[in-house]
Amino acid sequence: MTESADDARHKAKMENRKAVQDAEVASKTVEKGLLIVHTGKGKGKSTAAWGLMLRAIGRGFRIGVVQFGKGAWETGERKAIAAFGDQVSWHTLGEGFTWETQDRARDVAAAERAWAKAKELMADPAIRLLVLDELNIALRYDHLPIGDVVAALAARRPDLHVVVTGRNAKPELIEAADLVTEMNLVKHHFAAGVKAQEGIEY
Amino acid sequence: MTESADDARHKAKMENRKAVQDAEVASKTVEKGLLIVHTGKGKGKSTAAWGLMLRAIGRGFRIGVVQFGKGAWETGERKAIAAFGDQVSWHTLGEGFTWETQDRARDVAAAERAWAKAKELMADPAIRLLVLDELNIALRYDHLPIGDVVAALAARRPDLHVVVTGRNAKPELIEAADLVTEMNLVKHHFAAGVKAQEGIEY
Repeated sequence: MTESADDARHKAKMENRKAVQDAEVASKTVEKGLLIVHTGKGKGKSTAAWGLMLRAIGRGFRIGVVQFGKGAWETGERKAIAAFGDQVSWHTLGEGFTWETQDRARDVAAAERAWAKAKELMADPAIRLLVLDELNIALRYDHLPIGDVVAALAARRPDLHVVVTGRNAKPELIEAADLVTEMNLVKHHFAAGVKAQEGIEY
Repeated sequence: MTESADDARHKAKMENRKAVQDAEVASKTVEKGLLIVHTGKGKGKSTAAWGLMLRAIGRGFRIGVVQFGKGAWETGERKAIAAFGDQVSWHTLGEGFTWETQDRARDVAAAERAWAKAKELMADPAIRLLVLDELNIALRYDHLPIGDVVAALAARRPDLHVVVTGRNAKPELIEAADLVTEMNLVKHHFAAGVKAQEGIEY
């Protein structure tokens, strides 16, 4: 086959693909705040939430963040968002994962405080994106009742996007969500003895 | 079983889990720039790269970004990072995916320009994190020779982290990588007729 016949075939194939894509995009018309879940055992669940936060910052949205895990106060992402002043309302309210604190009553109390803050931010009409970081962990250990959480998320304002992160997302949350991504680990440098790297993992 | 017996059992289980975690963390001692790949058909591949960029910004790193896809000039993430001035060196050099341009020679030329910029940034000792957004697409269509790309990445400075995004990562790249995450789609709002949302998807 000559080069030009090859090119022509490629062009025809790509024209067809573009037509399919264009038709698909045109068929989507509904605007709504999305309930997004990042789950799975891989990296990138919280990190992709920070990427969404950055995108929303660029659109001028006000953003709320509630961390149900203990968070590290000095993470790179927290330092960076200081540049955006009060455009981001950030609350690290977890006390640590349950295997750190070894005190279930304390974990439940921390989860309840974090959830109260989440509900307060959901009620603030200025907030357009709310990140509930590691909420899935609190739900997984039944520190919060899944029914109450899903009901409150389903009843949110129509223009509020919510991102929930953490492994082991409960089926009830997945059912309620608009967009669910599972981050799976294919390969990890810890296996080669490489430690967590500043600027990448914290 | 009484509440306190339950609590004691929980505490013992969590103490054990913490010991395992602490020992694992202590065993990781190597510091190195990581080659990170975000692949899979799900959302969050580029978004998680922007989250890493934000984290690295907070650590004071200088960052390079080369977009092998056409990118949209007015994305939220680009607008937001303007706040960090020349800490981020951003280059959108792709011409669009091949099914948009329908011109393979042009796609190859664009990929070569983007790769030349990537090599230039890799040679700049001030850059600590380099994001090669959608490079996997260019490799998948053989717009760039995989062997050359993997060799250049393997020969990078020891303190340079590189993140490569895009679906269909080639096996040679996965083999060379330190950390590979596959983002898989569990559920997507497009299926319910919901369109791409400003501040979330662009």
